[in-house]
Amino acid sequence: MIPYREQKLTEEKVFKDPIHHYIHVRDRVIWDVIGTKEFQRLRRIRQLGTTYLVFHGAEHSRFQHSLGVYEIVRRIVDDVFTGRTEWREEERLVTLCAALLHDLGHGPFSHAFENVFELDHEQYTQAILLGNTEVNEVLSRVAPDFPERVANVIEKTYRDKLVVSLISSQIDADRMDYLQRDSYYTGVSYGHFDMERILRVMRPTEEQAVIKYSGMHAVEDYIMSRYQMYWQVYFHPVSRSAEVILIKILHRARQLYQEGYIFETNPTLFIPFFKERVTVEDYVALDESVLLSSFQLWQREKDAILSDLCTRFINRRLFQYAEFDPATEYQKFGKLQKLFERAGLDPTYYLVTDSSSDLPYDFYRTGEENERIPIHLQMPDGTLQELSRKSEIVEAISGKRRTDHKIYYPEDVLRRGAETNPHYAAILQLIGEK
Amino acid sequence: MIPYREQKLTEEKVFKDPIHHYIHVRDRVIWDVIGTKEFQRLRRIRQLGTTYLVFHGAEHSRFQHSLGVYEIVRRIVDDVFTGRTEWREEERLVTLCAALLHDLGHGPFSHAFENVFELDHEQYTQAILLGNTEVNEVLSRVAPDFPERVANVIEKTYRDKLVVSLISSQIDADRMDYLQRDSYYTGVSYGHFDMERILRVMRPTEEQAVIKYSGMHAVEDYIMSRYQMYWQVYFHPVSRSAEVILIKILHRARQLYQEGYIFETNPTLFIPFFKERVTVEDYVALDESVLLSSFQLWQREKDAILSDLCTRFINRRLFQYAEFDPATEYQKFGKLQKLFERAGLDPTYYLVTDSSSDLPYDFYRTGEENERIPIHLQMPDGTLQELSRKSEIVEAISGKRRTDHKIYYPEDVLRRGAETNPHYAAILQLIGEK
Amino acid sequence: MIPYREQKLTEEKVFKDPIHHYIHVRDRVIWDVIGTKEFQRLRRIRQLGTTYLVFHGAEHSRFQHSLGVYEIVRRIVDDVFTGRTEWREEERLVTLCAALLHDLGHGPFSHAFENVFELDHEQYTQAILLGNTEVNEVLSRVAPDFPERVANVIEKTYRDKLVVSLISSQIDADRMDYLQRDSYYTGVSYGHFDMERILRVMRPTEEQAVIKYSGMHAVEDYIMSRYQMYWQVYFHPVSRSAEVILIKILHRARQLYQEGYIFETNPTLFIPFFKERVTVEDYVALDESVLLSSFQLWQREKDAILSDLCTRFINRRLFQYAEFDPATEYQKFGKLQKLFERAGLDPTYYLVTDSSSDLPYDFYRTGEENERIPIHLQMPDGTLQELSRKSEIVEAISGKRRTDHKIYYPEDVLRRGAETNPHYAAILQLIGEK
Amino acid sequence: MIPYREQKLTEEKVFKDPIHHYIHVRDRVIWDVIGTKEFQRLRRIRQLGTTYLVFHGAEHSRFQHSLGVYEIVRRIVDDVFTGRTEWREEERLVTLCAALLHDLGHGPFSHAFENVFELDHEQYTQAILLGNTEVNEVLSRVAPDFPERVANVIEKTYRDKLVVSLISSQIDADRMDYLQRDSYYTGVSYGHFDMERILRVMRPTEEQAVIKYSGMHAVEDYIMSRYQMYWQVYFHPVSRSAEVILIKILHRARQLYQEGYIFETNPTLFIPFFKERVTVEDYVALDESVLLSSFQLWQREKDAILSDLCTRFINRRLFQYAEFDPATEYQKFGKLQKLFERAGLDPTYYLVTDSSSDLPYDFYRTGEENERIPIHLQMPDGTLQELSRKSEIVEAISGKRRTDHKIYYPEDVLRRGAETNPHYAAILQLIGEK
Repeated sequence: MIPYREQKLTEEKVFKDPIHHYIHVRDRVIWDVIGTKEFQRLRRIRQLGTTYLVFHGAEHSRFQHSLGVYEIVRRIVDDVFTGRTEWREEERLVTLCAALLHDLGHGPFSHAFENVFELDHEQYTQAILLGNTEVNEVLSRVAPDFPERVANVIEKTYRDKLVVSLISSQIDADRMDYLQRDSYYTGVSYGHFDMERILRVMRPTEEQAVIKYSGMHAVEDYIMSRYQMYWQVYFHPVSRSAEVILIKILHRARQLYQEGYIFETNPTLFIPFFKERVTVEDYVALDESVLLSSFQLWQREKDAILSDLCTRFINRRLFQYAEFDPATEYQKFGKLQKLFERAGLDPTYYLVTDSSSDLPYDFYRTGEENERIPIHLQMPDGTLQELSRKSEIVEAISGKRRTDHKIYYPEDVLRRGAETNPHYAAILQLIGEK
Repeated sequence: MIPYREQKLTEEKVFKDPIHHYIHVRDRVIWDVIGTKEFQRLRRIRQLGTTYLVFHGAEHSRFQHSLGVYEIVRRIVDDVFTGRTEWREEERLVTLCAALLHDLGHGPFSHAFENVFELDHEQYTQAILLGNTEVNEVLSRVAPDFPERVANVIEKTYRDKLVVSLISSQIDADRMDYLQRDSYYTGVSYGHFDMERILRVMRPTEEQAVIKYSGMHAVEDYIMSRYQMYWQVYFHPVSRSAEVILIKILHRARQLYQEGYIFETNPTLFIPFFKERVTVEDYVALDESVLLSSFQLWQREKDAILSDLCTRFINRRLFQYAEFDPATEYQKFGKLQKLFERAGLDPTYYLVTDSSSDLPYDFYRTGEENERIPIHLQMPDGTLQELSRKSEIVEAISGKRRTDHKIYYPEDVLRRGAETNPHYAAILQLIGEK
Repeated sequence: MIPYREQKLTEEKVFKDPIHHYIHVRDRVIWDVIGTKEFQRLRRIRQLGTTYLVFHGAEHSRFQHSLGVYEIVRRIVDDVFTGRTEWREEERLVTLCAALLHDLGHGPFSHAFENVFELDHEQYTQAILLGNTEVNEVLSRVAPDFPERVANVIEKTYRDKLVVSLISSQIDADRMDYLQRDSYYTGVSYGHFDMERILRVMRPTEEQAVIKYSGMHAVEDYIMSRYQMYWQVYFHPVSRSAEVILIKILHRARQLYQEGYIFETNPTLFIPFFKERVTVEDYVALDESVLLSSFQLWQREKDAILSDLCTRFINRRLFQYAEFDPATEYQKFGKLQKLFERAGLDPTYYLVTDSSSDLPYDFYRTGEENERIPIHLQMPDGTLQELSRKSEIVEAISGKRRTDHKIYYPEDVLRRGAETNPHYAAILQLIGEK
Repeated sequence: MIPYREQKLTEEKVFKDPIHHYIHVRDRVIWDVIGTKEFQRLRRIRQLGTTYLVFHGAEHSRFQHSLGVYEIVRRIVDDVFTGRTEWREEERLVTLCAALLHDLGHGPFSHAFENVFELDHEQYTQAILLGNTEVNEVLSRVAPDFPERVANVIEKTYRDKLVVSLISSQIDADRMDYLQRDSYYTGVSYGHFDMERILRVMRPTEEQAVIKYSGMHAVEDYIMSRYQMYWQVYFHPVSRSAEVILIKILHRARQLYQEGYIFETNPTLFIPFFKERVTVEDYVALDESVLLSSFQLWQREKDAILSDLCTRFINRRLFQYAEFDPATEYQKFGKLQKLFERAGLDPTYYLVTDSSSDLPYDFYRTGEENERIPIHLQMPDGTLQELSRKSEIVEAISGKRRTDHKIYYPEDVLRRGAETNPHYAAILQLIGEK
């Protein structure tokens, strides 16, 4: 009998996909992984969190992104790498599984959620892969150590660095899928680059996937796309405003629970998080529908802050924002906090700072654990060169961190009350001062 | 002071949209309507219900579709009709509002939900427009009878038939938006037609918007697109399978509640529906996140049927389907029901028939209330001709109703148990017989 | 040493193509064929003849279309058919060459040119393939009978009917490429269909390539696209007007030459055609640049008719058209001819009838030699069914020939002179009568 | 009676365009200009010269590009600028005409042609506008000085700098059209940017059109698109190789003529150029069909160099290229020249250097006449800032001239003869040395 790891479906299955046209599945293992409840859960986690409140098209889930990353890796491996000596065919299945499962541990509104509950989606990816789960059951059928191998690829400790680089590097399948997918669903003009070309010029080496020099311009375009998407979409201040409110809702609810507050409807699925004792099962039971329906109910809670914040989120009555330079304006911020208190607005919830920061491309950052692998070009003579040494454009932007600081506050309330409440007027005036 | 109905925003607001590029808002009324909680709720209702379980891209909401319909109508009215004698400029605002709000009363997973609770989204649209709601408050500021005028356009009783035809006819803005939008998000190749051309050749008449004869081919293409979308996307049997399960979940939950069953977590937001006493406020509190998170919880219920059906929906373990001709196979169906009972599978929940039916285009159907207005061509000499009289293609398909009947059943359970359970084997055999 | 027919390029060559993204060449034979002067000549023949005078984007050549047909066939053969028992791998190279070379014999402004000189591009394709040409030299290196085998596929007499059907049937690679390509370059909204899907469901049989039943809707869409393209683009009356003038120029020039007229500049490359003794070498020396530059010069000729017609073509001063029903209006046409003569306008050149006719799809037409092979569906049980028996839409339009008759005439001259010339006025009046 | 300059067509005319969807013409003047023979001639001049020999899709003409530039300017003027105080409505018509006619003087294969005959297309644009031409006749009907005003805009001496900036600046309608159009027709992934967004944020000022700060990212994307298009498409070495051959053909033909060589067929239309006495009429009689058909004939000439070069161009047997650094390799070049002479290959025609150079964006270049106007951002406080002061990316690449030097030579001949001809072998070896 054919071993499970080599079994093929009798007929190839396809998923219609707007980005890759079709996603092709022939391996039985892949088909079974997609059918697990932990993978299906990704249908209920949006790829871009609160961004849909700014770009209404951005309602797409991590489910489709995960399939997209799988498809890109499948094409690299089956169409480009296969038959080349640097590529070890026996790594194929672990690579495909890692591609498909790299986001498995993402929680609902991932960044906000992790921020509040001090969780790390990467740890949960590991926990789900290795725990008592359907996905673990499927992967274990390949080989007892197979779940761990998949987990190692995702946490970048896998022995075969080439495999890791396909999932996590500065030009990995993850980034190539999300740039195109997020561009498509938001409808922005950015995020396009010639992925076909990049795939065609990718070459395996011992350490990582590299790009033939003749494809350098396609890579430049990809780097620029990424830069534009960050500032136009991912760091959009209105989306950050929604995230700020989300964070404050979760903060408030936990605090109330811990102080013994009795909710009208028992927040069953949240309790493990409030108690800070979360099992894998608790974790995967949470998704964005649970958060949204809870906020729906919490609008009716007696606690004015929780109720107000939930109403804001559900009905999209977000905070306004203003530029804020922490290096020079910390005193102004202190004054604002006092004014908020005097005005009866709790600054913990109603005066929030938030920063975004991006490094468009970097070849080397010492001391940063999360560093992704830099891009190398394979020159006509076979030597490798780090991208920014050959590309003037990339060199120009390389290592230039750009940061954006803002404060968020309920301008609607302040403006409506400014005529009668002098504190409100004072706050608005101070914020407006340069 | 400028009356509210004529107020313009100081700067035009735009929404980035993948279908129309940008959606433009200059009227203050429109901006305020978009900001109401009843309109924002449409963000939490998917445009295509369960279709995302087949076409993973189809996660888009009715919110964006509603903006799209508004934008199409705005372009017709402001770019094409304005200045023509048949068009009365004073109908502009009511037309735009009706376009924006035509889907306001849709519930979560609309068709399934309405089916079970015997509700009608059109009635709820009326109720929300005329009830004690934010949207009513905004519209009333235009004029006391304005909410009713908007409601009349949507229910097709408005005195100005031209206005009605823009929202509800065989070539209305609703259809033009959803065909393109659903095509874009599913990623299918169907659903394209030259809307720019159609808009350019639309002309106002007393009774309806008509199409200049020179644009007939663009309309043919639109009709064919619609036909293809119905059979490729809207009636996809796997999506119908998910809908069948959804219907059965809601049935079961109501039945249990009415029989006095105690749920682990109180289904607060469902209770008015189970009691069949639903206020407007109850109605708008329900959205798809509430359904999904309830199903999440109901997986843990003691009732085996409810728990199983919810697990099926959440983890996408859908029913299999088979062709079924009710005209000739009713006896076979009776036999199957008995076999299911003997096998311990309640046929009420596990053996379900479902039919889809579409009329690609019809010029006249007597006695059908919901009939949409047929398409008329404006000939070079100014006379009007019904489309199917001039177009061979449309004539060929006109009035041809196509219907598709299927039965749905849990093949997974049957197949797993077939070796040990002779009833299961018998069921599978009977279904397989021609 | 590897035989020529099996030689591969050391590195795959690609052509960037807007329709297929990239066109891939790995076979040395294909690469060499593309480099021959007879194939390169197709760069100087427009795919859509005079259509660029209506749709200014339609300036694309038969060169790129030929590459496109090759690429589609390559994908069918290498990605879909390979490994299936009905497909004989040894037919691969002849199939690819026939795909690439199927339009090799097209002359400049093909239809007009063939019409006037009573040539047949299919005969010239044969002549070039089998004559003393570069392309023959390359193909002969594969095997002495290889040029003839390629020729047989193109003229549909090849023994392997499956191979023929890929190049010439109602759903062949030729049509699939040109519909998409012509749509792209004209910029019209028609002409889209899901080719990816069609390729995926194509299956080889003894007699022809067939389509799995599950792909029927994609085929319906393709048939409708074809129908729309014919009436919107290919039969556009303004493009036909340009073609009418082109035909009359060539007529006039030949007539003048045969009557002994001395041209200002010797029409070197035309002389074999005027003398009706055309060698293969003469034929391939003619391309659209030769025609256009000759018309440029002939504007300066003394012959008023030749000069006027050339000026019309070069400066796009085309004839106007009117509907004309030959069945009922032949007497009116006779009157018009007399009026033209009296008005001093030679009706041979200035009053021209032209008809277009299309059969959107036909399953069987007895007695028509040029009949293409009908489309067959492969049902789930393996049997074949002709498309129109399963598809209501195709059945509805099947066999419905649509014909459009028009007369063309120099309205500009008539209108400018109508006030002073009563014959002109009479002509205009008679044309305007119904 | 309505003055000519204000006459509107009774029905708007449209041209279907793949880039702008439709090009709209309502002004009678514009319609008449498009109908002139000088404008229609642009149909016979390719937008990208020899590029179609590399990117086979790039067969599009300057005719469609000119319409595209017109359409962009029309939209800026009619949709964005109209009603703003800085914009003078009376400049509308001259602006539209200048947009439409800015490329009027381009010759066939413009760069090569101008290079050889020492002509300047800008001078010919002036000459055609002001000479005894159809286009002059139409423009003069607007006002006697109108042709001169249009000419002044195109030569950048017009009094209203805002008008000039729409046609010639670093972000003018010319560039916005060609980047998108060339990208579309070549099929490359570069060249996309959000023109809709840029048009929406364009604002008129006294001196030039500026961009609102909120649109800076769209402008960055445009600059990067331009950079990529230059290096991926416009400076493609194979296209330059074809241009090199073209230049050498024209050189040779002129030299032969001037030396008294008798051509087989009289090169009628070239003679004024060979004699260096070119009238406007001579100039507009030349187009790419004339060049190509002449090369067709010249393949048969006795002169071996002319015949060989023409055969190379017609059949796409281009020169190979190698990197060449003039600063360090001038001695090697001298040696190569001598080797070529010894080998019997005239280095004037068979060993050619060529350089490409681009400045992606520059804010200021003193002393360069052809300098285009830099881009200015309009800050929220109304002040203007030069783009590179606000954009890190643009600043990074600003003023960085990139140059690429190559030598071109007939590698095919050298390689075929290398075994028997030691000079050939020596040449190849020397070129290959680093």
